[in-house]
Amino acid sequence: MKFCSACAHPVTVEVPPDDTLPRHVCHACGIIHYQNPKLVICTIPTWEENGETKVLLCKRAISPRHGYWTLPGGFMENKETTTEAAQRETEEEAGAHFELLPLHSLINLPAFHQVHLFYRATLLDLEFNPGKESLEVRLFAKSEIPWDHIAFATVTQALQLYFDDVAKVKHGGTFGFHAHDIMGPGYPGG
Amino acid sequence: MKFCSACAHPVTVEVPPDDTLPRHVCHACGIIHYQNPKLVICTIPTWEENGETKVLLCKRAISPRHGYWTLPGGFMENKETTTEAAQRETEEEAGAHFELLPLHSLINLPAFHQVHLFYRATLLDLEFNPGKESLEVRLFAKSEIPWDHIAFATVTQALQLYFDDVAKVKHGGTFGFHAHDIMGPGYPGG
Repeated sequence: MKFCSACAHPVTVEVPPDDTLPRHVCHACGIIHYQNPKLVICTIPTWEENGETKVLLCKRAISPRHGYWTLPGGFMENKETTTEAAQRETEEEAGAHFELLPLHSLINLPAFHQVHLFYRATLLDLEFNPGKESLEVRLFAKSEIPWDHIAFATVTQALQLYFDDVAKVKHGGTFGFHAHDIMGPGYPGG
Repeated sequence: MKFCSACAHPVTVEVPPDDTLPRHVCHACGIIHYQNPKLVICTIPTWEENGETKVLLCKRAISPRHGYWTLPGGFMENKETTTEAAQRETEEEAGAHFELLPLHSLINLPAFHQVHLFYRATLLDLEFNPGKESLEVRLFAKSEIPWDHIAFATVTQALQLYFDDVAKVKHGGTFGFHAHDIMGPGYPGG
């Protein structure tokens, strides 16, 4: 940000009075332009086959990470809820028919100013319709997942948390809600 | 947004190619300025006294809702995690000493482009230090909560969900994770 989006005057970066962090401030119109993390909302759509849980992944047709596999998801839009975003992204990227289930995981990605939410979902049939953003959509058993070709660290983490729960559920446990932080360059543990 | 924050050229509002929603687009430098919901992170700090659960509320010293009561919380900042935001806001607004516990509720507020998260927290002592944003900080039993003077609908909802769980926990239940949508003007149920 170099210019004020309200009046086009150049902004300066400074800590405003009564604040503790540097902000983009416009001294012409007085506006402080705050920048905050974005929400990325995804689903983990699954199908049961011969007692085995398979998960739907999309092969990305867009950058970043073109050609890598991901769970359906994307940036939450204004005017929608987190579950509406989960449904929209899954329809757009996989053309899947599904029932949305409770939230499964929240993964912080502070190096990228993002928080990723993953909802469980049960596929209602096996008719998929890859959208413009997907080259291919298919189901993977845990042993078939292309772990070296997953697009994002948050998706790898969410899949691991999910399949850990699947193992617990087979022994009488329940799906829980999980929180996890993936730090990065410049962050503790990054 | 009237001007491009990168080059100061006037922006237009239009649906970009391969997109479905109107965005602020700069035809001079080509940037699309996306706008997305913000995360508000709060805590529900509690103290047990004679078998009764009391919750810490802050009386707001700032607008909006000056003089009304709220749980500690505020907008999540870039470069932090959701739990770091919860800890920071509770220290800033209440000066409280506490142990942060798991996430208790997620409340969507689509009319305001916000998602509010509420973490449980156990107070470690009764030494508070209201920050610049609080006129007063004190504990309330459920029967003492000033329901007509709570600053925000999300806080009212989170307190109700929390005390519902407190009643269940007294009968052997556990604190769950809860999701709730508060629609608004122009939204279903608003």
